[in-house]
Amino acid sequence: MFRPKSVAILGASTNENKIGGRPVRYLKHYKFDGPIYPVNPNAAEVQGLTAYKSILDVAGEVDLALIVLPATAVLQAARECAEKGVKSVVIFSAGFAETGDEGHAAQLEMARIAEQAGMRIVGPNCMGIAAFDHNMIITFGVSMMNMPPVLGPVSIVSQSGAFGSVAYAESRQRQLGVRLWATTGNEADVNVADCLNYYVEDPETKVIMMYFEASRGGAKLVAGLQAAKKARKPVIAMKVGSSDVGAEAALSHTNSLAGSDSVVDTVLEKYNAYRAFTLDEFFDIGYAFTSDLFPAGNRLGIVTISGGVGILMSDYAVKLGLDVARLSEPAQAKVKEIIPIAGTRNPVDITGQAVNQPEIVERCLDIMIAAGEHDVIIVFFAGMTSLEFLERAGLIRIREKHPTAAIIVSVVMAEETRQIFDDLNYLVIPDPTRAVRATAALMQVGRGYAKSDPPAPPALAAPVEVPGEMPNEVAAKRILAKAGVPVVGERLATSAEAAQKYAAEIGCPVAMKLVSTEILHKSEIGGVLLNVEDETAAREGFDTLIGRAKSAQPDAKIDGVVVAPMISGGVETILGVKVDPAFGPVVVFGLGGIFVELLSDVTQHLAPFGVEEAHEMMREVKGFPLLDGARGAEPADIDALAEALSMLSQFAHENAQQIESIDINPFLVLPKGQGAFAVDALIVPSK
Amino acid sequence: MFRPKSVAILGASTNENKIGGRPVRYLKHYKFDGPIYPVNPNAAEVQGLTAYKSILDVAGEVDLALIVLPATAVLQAARECAEKGVKSVVIFSAGFAETGDEGHAAQLEMARIAEQAGMRIVGPNCMGIAAFDHNMIITFGVSMMNMPPVLGPVSIVSQSGAFGSVAYAESRQRQLGVRLWATTGNEADVNVADCLNYYVEDPETKVIMMYFEASRGGAKLVAGLQAAKKARKPVIAMKVGSSDVGAEAALSHTNSLAGSDSVVDTVLEKYNAYRAFTLDEFFDIGYAFTSDLFPAGNRLGIVTISGGVGILMSDYAVKLGLDVARLSEPAQAKVKEIIPIAGTRNPVDITGQAVNQPEIVERCLDIMIAAGEHDVIIVFFAGMTSLEFLERAGLIRIREKHPTAAIIVSVVMAEETRQIFDDLNYLVIPDPTRAVRATAALMQVGRGYAKSDPPAPPALAAPVEVPGEMPNEVAAKRILAKAGVPVVGERLATSAEAAQKYAAEIGCPVAMKLVSTEILHKSEIGGVLLNVEDETAAREGFDTLIGRAKSAQPDAKIDGVVVAPMISGGVETILGVKVDPAFGPVVVFGLGGIFVELLSDVTQHLAPFGVEEAHEMMREVKGFPLLDGARGAEPADIDALAEALSMLSQFAHENAQQIESIDINPFLVLPKGQGAFAVDALIVPSK
Repeated sequence: MFRPKSVAILGASTNENKIGGRPVRYLKHYKFDGPIYPVNPNAAEVQGLTAYKSILDVAGEVDLALIVLPATAVLQAARECAEKGVKSVVIFSAGFAETGDEGHAAQLEMARIAEQAGMRIVGPNCMGIAAFDHNMIITFGVSMMNMPPVLGPVSIVSQSGAFGSVAYAESRQRQLGVRLWATTGNEADVNVADCLNYYVEDPETKVIMMYFEASRGGAKLVAGLQAAKKARKPVIAMKVGSSDVGAEAALSHTNSLAGSDSVVDTVLEKYNAYRAFTLDEFFDIGYAFTSDLFPAGNRLGIVTISGGVGILMSDYAVKLGLDVARLSEPAQAKVKEIIPIAGTRNPVDITGQAVNQPEIVERCLDIMIAAGEHDVIIVFFAGMTSLEFLERAGLIRIREKHPTAAIIVSVVMAEETRQIFDDLNYLVIPDPTRAVRATAALMQVGRGYAKSDPPAPPALAAPVEVPGEMPNEVAAKRILAKAGVPVVGERLATSAEAAQKYAAEIGCPVAMKLVSTEILHKSEIGGVLLNVEDETAAREGFDTLIGRAKSAQPDAKIDGVVVAPMISGGVETILGVKVDPAFGPVVVFGLGGIFVELLSDVTQHLAPFGVEEAHEMMREVKGFPLLDGARGAEPADIDALAEALSMLSQFAHENAQQIESIDINPFLVLPKGQGAFAVDALIVPSK
Repeated sequence: MFRPKSVAILGASTNENKIGGRPVRYLKHYKFDGPIYPVNPNAAEVQGLTAYKSILDVAGEVDLALIVLPATAVLQAARECAEKGVKSVVIFSAGFAETGDEGHAAQLEMARIAEQAGMRIVGPNCMGIAAFDHNMIITFGVSMMNMPPVLGPVSIVSQSGAFGSVAYAESRQRQLGVRLWATTGNEADVNVADCLNYYVEDPETKVIMMYFEASRGGAKLVAGLQAAKKARKPVIAMKVGSSDVGAEAALSHTNSLAGSDSVVDTVLEKYNAYRAFTLDEFFDIGYAFTSDLFPAGNRLGIVTISGGVGILMSDYAVKLGLDVARLSEPAQAKVKEIIPIAGTRNPVDITGQAVNQPEIVERCLDIMIAAGEHDVIIVFFAGMTSLEFLERAGLIRIREKHPTAAIIVSVVMAEETRQIFDDLNYLVIPDPTRAVRATAALMQVGRGYAKSDPPAPPALAAPVEVPGEMPNEVAAKRILAKAGVPVVGERLATSAEAAQKYAAEIGCPVAMKLVSTEILHKSEIGGVLLNVEDETAAREGFDTLIGRAKSAQPDAKIDGVVVAPMISGGVETILGVKVDPAFGPVVVFGLGGIFVELLSDVTQHLAPFGVEEAHEMMREVKGFPLLDGARGAEPADIDALAEALSMLSQFAHENAQQIESIDINPFLVLPKGQGAFAVDALIVPSK
């Protein structure tokens, strides 16, 4: 698709400014190296090229066909492309799935035609694709004509055509060289994940910029992100639509906690992709990523000629979680020798003195680089600065001495000067706060690269079956227990006698609860008895509970009454699973009570994962100190909790097809060494 | 100072590129309308102007003198200026308070000279001042020469000279017209707050941009912000140094909760100033504020030709707290009539169709403006867009029909086109996410303008005295009670018999606690007894507590044992006061326990305030629902809490000089109608 030897345009226009005319014009203008076949039944010639009545009239092979026809003519054209043996088709035409059921059906038919013929389709309703390294530009956007491409290490894929166009224009304005470019539109066949995977394999692509709305092809997306991480090709992603969620009906609590947007976050984070939320961030950080400067640490050094801007940068860096590490005393002393009035702690404030004595910049940098106490150094000069000044400040010599030192130059400079600095392998980010933000992004991704892959998570001892019907609470806990998630020691009584017997075995006081998948809010109908004092009370309790159930909901199926020990102490947590339609099972964790309900203090990880990751995961919630013995409380058994989280993740992973969601609420974590267990559980099977 | 009729330059240089030469050059170049007196003992002429040996040799009056001399010569020069009767002095020279004790002393002397002579000083260690409307530019920065000023409605003050220089250059590059400009440096006399107050009074200044590091002149700053709010002159502030705090020793809990940086936030928020954290934000929002577009509501309408960018904008808007309100059905139907394929809910996605039929933009805007369902409408077109296209899209006619409709145009356009749009009273913010952020800022400030001033807070019934020595717990509560803050009904026993008697009066069980200002951690030495069952136990308890105190800390002064009722239920909160050195007393509020300790979930307001503001304040903490009856709990007596907060604020206000801090921890709020009271209290008098 990105490397066609020949291109046909179905709907080619003689008017080079029309949507059907522009691709012909662009291919000619940028000297595409292969035959161009305009197809237009009403013209003998299109923009100086021989036109064909039908693609079937073309004598040579056609690798790529572009369809620019009214929606009603597209399916027939696609069939002809298939007949001709075209390998790939790009369809600009709108009027398909985005317009409703009829269009959706037509789009499915289009996909079917392509699949049968072994032909790939980009679109419909897209703005085309481009491989700038092959002068292959198939689009109707105007920016690629107004702003000729500059070849570079970045490849872009955008689901939205208009965003793709904006992305091209913005990259171009920021001197960010682009290599491959694709917009996927309605994604009848090729989607953003396909392009991601292709870009990872393209040897010349160094940075991947990706925009998407729907998460189609979740598994492929995960595979692509994983491959990109392995190949150390940084991915910067913009995923929109987070504000449009929220309307999901939620039988399960977990389901509403784990919105599909936060699953995307989880996936991107796991595979070390950077998620941007504004256009500035998208492009600034896309540019920063071309540096391949991904430090493992987060210590930022700042050299500034303005104390004020230095503080501003420090503040922002601290806000973003960086360590503006103080320079060591010996290094500070050396700086003082050079500039007695300098601020030396970090930021190193060389003051306006640098205007008269630019060489102090070089001497300071020499000291800081030799000290090796920072992972990135930002050098800030105010205002437009000439090449001559920058040379006198030693920035060119610095590169000769330290070719790979991680230095960001925050200086407004003329375009030619900037080119020289780019070639010297400096990142140039004139705005000092944006330089700090880019540094934070580089460090975030660098940390991900530095982290070794976690050990493989433990498999379940034996496969555990999940029934197609929703199991009751007791059955759900039995299933979880088989999967290695500890549960409370309880018994299901189906008679008053059994309840009495179980109470005696367990030891009073006990707790008793109705078991029924058809009564949703058991405590509201008095379906729970706590602190049942003795065996007689348990016997009577059985009848009381059944009586309450029958009067509240006469037709409900009742499975019995569960008898469990009364337990005091421990920390209540919530463990959950949500199987995301795109990305598969996600495990959710939070502390019980106000932490989840009031503060939404939850975290989620893609399943499966091992104990090590489970430990990291529990530390991500704000309430973690309560598990760790905050306020003088006893430390809880977090090892047992980690083990349970890991086993739950493995269970969800192995049964992803069978499960919609799981709630374990509460999962009680006892003091250290005493274990942890599920008190209540709900497993919702997939429909 | 900003309106001198004549200017003298002490240290004027014949070299127009030297620090002492540039101001002469700039005044000449920009045609300052008044005599310029260069003072230079070694030259008869400076840059074509007659030079004077001393300022005392100048025959005419000198309104403003600039001193550009080595630090050692500055004091003498200042004395001569005073002798000459100069009204204002600007001092570039560094080498004063920023260098240590000796420099600090010299700076104090400088301030003294000025005060005695009734002369004002800007600096030392500053980069000067400018009044572009009077061609008065006194600086050595190069940007004002490289980029000639464009007059406009913005006035800038920056404590940092270099930041002031950056601010000028950035404003200039963004076509943001500047009127008055000042850098205050070491602030021996004139500070940022002085300039703020002056700018508020300047009739032509519409927007004030302010950068500061230290909060000098807190009361003046507050007065300036208050006046700016009243005059509806928006202030955008950048306050740096937040990362440099943290090292304060904290006897009081409140003191460490209320960092000086968060007090600045509180002050800025109270007076409706916008705080920026990045340079982009500072300038983008400074520009947006020139529009005087401050809607009271937060409903954002979006018209976009790209569905993708529309979603991106919605997401970001929701993230910033805006309401991307759905268009009403009738209005949606009208949009559908014009463009059947449009997305109509909001964002209104008019699709690429707009390229072929630009007039649909106008028709959509007409519908949305007529519907009146949004407070601001952003119109987004991708890419560089010609004036001709924008005219065809009806944006000029829209202004004729709706001259004041709140519309932001998010379009990349040529400079001349942009000028036309600025003149049409459109805000032009090409980047769509930045347009959304600017909208959020406009709405934030608009909300502040729309809010009516709260009623005056209640005064204390009678003045309450605060002793110079730290009162013990019981005395502290008595003081608070006098101020109208309810406290627990307790008695201080100084003998075992008294303890017995009080226990009988209060009614057992009671709580008993050692009272001593010298024993800090009473519970650690067993200094607290809970659930004391009867009067005999209370009698014995007295001796037990005194015994424990004597064995733990034999020399500690013990005031007795407090006997109080045991209370169960209620919600524990924390009320505090911190008297900020710059801004005066601040009241801090949070929920007890994990909310404060684990989550730092506190809020603070400047004292004094009334009950209405206290109600707003308590709603600002995340834990508020616990007071409001979350999770089925009983609603607490928030009216009593609000009353106590308000009275505490008034007490702090009236005794700001006597108090360093107050902790009321816990302040127990009982169920609705049952009141609230301080259980423990600490008042730290000012030193």
